[in-house]
Amino acid sequence: MEYLKNDPVKLNAAGDRVIIIDQRRLPQETVFLELGSIDEMYDAIKTLAVRGAPCIGVFAGYCMAVLSLAEKDRDSDGFAGVMKEHAKRLCMSRPTAVNLNWALSRQIGIMDKMKGTDPKVISQKLFEEAKEIHEEDIRMCLAISENGLSLLHDGDGILTHCNAGALATTRYGTGLGPILLGRERGYDFHVYSDETRPLLQGARLTAYELARAGVDVTVICDNMANLCMNEGRINAVLVGCDRVAANGDAANKIGTSALAVLAKHHGIPFYVLGPYSTIDMDCGSGADIKIEQRDPREISSMWYESPLTVEGAKYYNPAFDVTDNSLITAIITDRGILYPPFSESIRKALS
Amino acid sequence: MEYLKNDPVKLNAAGDRVIIIDQRRLPQETVFLELGSIDEMYDAIKTLAVRGAPCIGVFAGYCMAVLSLAEKDRDSDGFAGVMKEHAKRLCMSRPTAVNLNWALSRQIGIMDKMKGTDPKVISQKLFEEAKEIHEEDIRMCLAISENGLSLLHDGDGILTHCNAGALATTRYGTGLGPILLGRERGYDFHVYSDETRPLLQGARLTAYELARAGVDVTVICDNMANLCMNEGRINAVLVGCDRVAANGDAANKIGTSALAVLAKHHGIPFYVLGPYSTIDMDCGSGADIKIEQRDPREISSMWYESPLTVEGAKYYNPAFDVTDNSLITAIITDRGILYPPFSESIRKALS
Repeated sequence: MEYLKNDPVKLNAAGDRVIIIDQRRLPQETVFLELGSIDEMYDAIKTLAVRGAPCIGVFAGYCMAVLSLAEKDRDSDGFAGVMKEHAKRLCMSRPTAVNLNWALSRQIGIMDKMKGTDPKVISQKLFEEAKEIHEEDIRMCLAISENGLSLLHDGDGILTHCNAGALATTRYGTGLGPILLGRERGYDFHVYSDETRPLLQGARLTAYELARAGVDVTVICDNMANLCMNEGRINAVLVGCDRVAANGDAANKIGTSALAVLAKHHGIPFYVLGPYSTIDMDCGSGADIKIEQRDPREISSMWYESPLTVEGAKYYNPAFDVTDNSLITAIITDRGILYPPFSESIRKALS
Repeated sequence: MEYLKNDPVKLNAAGDRVIIIDQRRLPQETVFLELGSIDEMYDAIKTLAVRGAPCIGVFAGYCMAVLSLAEKDRDSDGFAGVMKEHAKRLCMSRPTAVNLNWALSRQIGIMDKMKGTDPKVISQKLFEEAKEIHEEDIRMCLAISENGLSLLHDGDGILTHCNAGALATTRYGTGLGPILLGRERGYDFHVYSDETRPLLQGARLTAYELARAGVDVTVICDNMANLCMNEGRINAVLVGCDRVAANGDAANKIGTSALAVLAKHHGIPFYVLGPYSTIDMDCGSGADIKIEQRDPREISSMWYESPLTVEGAKYYNPAFDVTDNSLITAIITDRGILYPPFSESIRKALS
């Protein structure tokens, strides 16, 4: 389908740059960036040019491969040293994104395993591994989408938050995967997309992606979700996740936890969708997840325009919140649908 | 205090125009509009240059007085006829605002009672009545503020939504009344102001008003309220109301009902503040309250700037929602604090 052709992350033809869609400029403009330096890559993650947990993972895999090109003439120790510095730097660009750390660790793992091998050979292997991470992601999204779709019905009203679609991953997406897959199979969903302040990923990316895929999508302000539920418009809530703790607590875009409380109040199922790599077994519960604080000007600048800063007022801008596992109906992964008690079902899925 | 000096509604010195602060242009500019014609007055309400239920009531009272000046040379029937047309027109500018209808009915009541009297005399009486409505509003706000303050504690974290302050009324306000009165008495509150999409009354007006009054105020996006509650920052939620049904269901700015659900989930008291005139005994429950639908471009235009409209996407823009009485801890009025069961306490307060 048309909307799948613009893969948000890929290598350029020469294989020495990572190409991304600049998601900061959607939906007005579709602009591709070619990134070759660590600074460009760090900034791309930090400023959300590339975003979405799985997408960041795929991006980080390619970054490590591309960065190795400039370092492959070093000796073995020098190569390992500088590459680990690069990985550390990239990791700091988005502390909440577990996929970032996961993909970087995978590439570091390759390097550790091949220690002593000619860095040129290691560099080739990093490219292979990056492609493998990418292909795995496509397979994962399809599996998540299939699992999610099995819980939906034709005609359902679906609420979603932020963007967990193909733009956030590689194909189909996680949170939007069942919707896009269902659309291919002729399902008619009525999707309500929270605009998702302050950066408007829902109004910009989800609305753009779903409308292009021919899905019926209505943008609402974040504060309208409860009315939509009251009015019977919503049959299920689908959201992505940035990190899931071992007990099922799920970190995702700020505002997600409120939807979970509202869904519970209305008896509407609340589904968290993500690849198993989003589950962080080193993280016991949501209390261990550090909430990233972002620039207050993201709120006061209203995104594109003249600032709306009130003198004397403060601005609080947490990027994420954590949804308590007691509010989650199911966690839908590529390894199956996990139900409460999550400590148990997660352990089983990962074993 | 400084912030009280700019009364949002008053007569000009000649007494033939209504002066309002153009609230669409706050906080960037403090601009006063002088309105003399029915079209200007209708537009002022419709486009939210004047807003806030009590403020609209006071405004409507003055509008009827000023409009009578141009009609007072008609015969008695002609005068009554054209004035009732004016009232009808004004009433249609904001169908959800019960204070609008209430103030207009009060002026119509004066006219009906004085039927046959010289329209010049009736016109004078309409001015007197408008001033009386205004002064009653000031007394009401003070009573509401006193009642509300009795439920708060020094140091409390308070969440509020939209703007129910002095700009929405005449002095102190309703929802913000206890905060502003408390500030005068040396209380230190920590106020979190939802920005209140799509029109940003919280980010613009509440932040402006509270910061000017020296209150510690932090602007958050609407979707951050649940995290603030999770983090223990909120001890009480204070909101205004546009209409309260006989059973206690309360219509207020879109997003209010979600806060009530969240507050209940966290065991935080949720207070609705408003004058008794906001209670509509002809309205049995929230189901009888028509939700005003506003221009979808309010969402897609992001208020001041270039539109963010996605081709193919729809936009849903309800102006209000209704908070079920079961979610309300107390309704704080000028006639006292009403507790559940509201059908009973409301009936008592109105009798």
